[in-house]
Amino acid sequence: MQKAEYLGNRRFEIGVGHMAQPAPDEVTLRVAYVGLCGTDLHIYHGKMDHRVHPPGIIGHEMSGTVAVLGESVKGFAVGDNVVVRPLDYCGSCPACTAGHSHVCHRLKFMGVDSTGALQSYWTVKARSLHRLPDNVDLKRGALVEPLAVACHDVARSRLRAGERAVVLGGGPIGQLIALVGKALGAHVLVSEPHALRRTYAADAGIEVFDPTGANLAEHVEAWTGSKGADVVFEVAGVPQTVQMMTKIAAVRGRICMVAIHSSQPPVDLFRFFWRELELLGARVYQAEDFDRAIELIASGQIPVDPLITSVRPLADVQRAFEMLDTGQAGMKTLLECRA
Amino acid sequence: MQKAEYLGNRRFEIGVGHMAQPAPDEVTLRVAYVGLCGTDLHIYHGKMDHRVHPPGIIGHEMSGTVAVLGESVKGFAVGDNVVVRPLDYCGSCPACTAGHSHVCHRLKFMGVDSTGALQSYWTVKARSLHRLPDNVDLKRGALVEPLAVACHDVARSRLRAGERAVVLGGGPIGQLIALVGKALGAHVLVSEPHALRRTYAADAGIEVFDPTGANLAEHVEAWTGSKGADVVFEVAGVPQTVQMMTKIAAVRGRICMVAIHSSQPPVDLFRFFWRELELLGARVYQAEDFDRAIELIASGQIPVDPLITSVRPLADVQRAFEMLDTGQAGMKTLLECRA
Repeated sequence: MQKAEYLGNRRFEIGVGHMAQPAPDEVTLRVAYVGLCGTDLHIYHGKMDHRVHPPGIIGHEMSGTVAVLGESVKGFAVGDNVVVRPLDYCGSCPACTAGHSHVCHRLKFMGVDSTGALQSYWTVKARSLHRLPDNVDLKRGALVEPLAVACHDVARSRLRAGERAVVLGGGPIGQLIALVGKALGAHVLVSEPHALRRTYAADAGIEVFDPTGANLAEHVEAWTGSKGADVVFEVAGVPQTVQMMTKIAAVRGRICMVAIHSSQPPVDLFRFFWRELELLGARVYQAEDFDRAIELIASGQIPVDPLITSVRPLADVQRAFEMLDTGQAGMKTLLECRA
Repeated sequence: MQKAEYLGNRRFEIGVGHMAQPAPDEVTLRVAYVGLCGTDLHIYHGKMDHRVHPPGIIGHEMSGTVAVLGESVKGFAVGDNVVVRPLDYCGSCPACTAGHSHVCHRLKFMGVDSTGALQSYWTVKARSLHRLPDNVDLKRGALVEPLAVACHDVARSRLRAGERAVVLGGGPIGQLIALVGKALGAHVLVSEPHALRRTYAADAGIEVFDPTGANLAEHVEAWTGSKGADVVFEVAGVPQTVQMMTKIAAVRGRICMVAIHSSQPPVDLFRFFWRELELLGARVYQAEDFDRAIELIASGQIPVDPLITSVRPLADVQRAFEMLDTGQAGMKTLLECRA
């Protein structure tokens, strides 16, 4: 049994983990794979120490197997392969009572605000589990959480078959959004300055554009017959894409705000008036987004294997973060937590 | 017959008007009353000379009587009291073909991009007319256009009975939005720094708040039981209200962007993510907004008489703009264009 502890200041330490006994409504999982994402990198940079309170165990994109069931848990059995929807909500605040528990006023994001998955065993509430079907192996299962993010973003945008969408930013989430949009029959264009990321997207059959080499606004004008994009996903989170999002959206176009902006960039509010644009914030996911993500992988509609560019043992956690930080990690790194 | 010509540089001149013969699809109206609004003031300040091309006749909030019918016009008769929906759209651009002709890519706003109503006779396309019922007199009729703006804003916001809405800015449009919201059964609070405007709103039975005397965010927190406002209307168009709009909106709250921002203020995009907020741009109105506005006045649900704080002859146009510019005009000034 092992655990990877984040100590603060870009440092991880491998220690001896333990296996907690689950409370009646909990389940203890044997963790298989944990993916690393932008939020984890943000934590590594020390930007979220006020939430993580190091030393602590992070990690929230995971797959695993039910090891111990709490006494009142129904519907799961020891040995089931599962993924965790890492949202711990209160159930009683105005957002929860309005049916939006994923945006609970007191939401604890597991792996940030409470203990995460980078350990051999993880004990979680049974209500957070989604079962993996037999044809979704545990490696692919570790991609369910980021794919659920993309499913949620696309659902928020109300993207429909036949519409044209532009994704600003071709990192893992941008690529998954493009794949989800494509799976539902929309025409999707990913704008991404990094050649390697464009290659990944193109290999997955996604139309790509290099915004450093040409004018994206002119390209979208031509691509849409002067209408503009029905949907824009702002995933990059930089002032340039905030400027671009309002330029390329059609009349009544929907702009989905996926990026987490820690500063307040200038926004062309005139354009919101002029074209009756919509801006839709999107945060994490709901249970149905996990169900949809699992279905998209299980049916083969979204091949996630090419996104998994590295699998390493948990003991390599420090090196994995260093490579993620320096852009050498490819698209998605998984850490295997089984000894 | 007379006309008021805008000469540029805050100057108007009264001249001799003429009565054009209508084309087959047009109608010539005898203009009764024309209201002055913020857009007209903007023109007066010279900010829209690139669209108005002075000298020119402006004015778009009007009521009048059908004087001459073009030969192919059906459904109207000489003597009918009418108002004009002052939108001249192309009918063939992507916005028009998608059913959003009010946001036509080539929209001409009559009274800005083409000749307006500050004259004895105005010739317009018959498709822009809405008939006034007998119980809506011509003075009240001149309020239909700004009330249609408010109806459109409220429709865009999807405000429902029982919800709580905050209107940031209590000028004429803000007050009309509040009245439309109240008429459909919502709880509405108007935040407005100027005492006189608060008094107008309070006299119309609207709840008011002075943001210079207390903290609006704390007040809305208490007013909504810590939920936040279901809907926020940003009508003031200043950076402070752009900051406030994201602070006071509930999870999944809708922010309707009514103000015309000519600069790009910083926007708290993090809050859009964090609370899954929506921003909805709203521009002018659709035909159904005019129908709804007429119905609200005709049924007495919205008493517009108190908003009409001054009625002057067209010959006073220069003085009327000077008073509007210096804040001495009260809520709404009408110019009577009949000799």
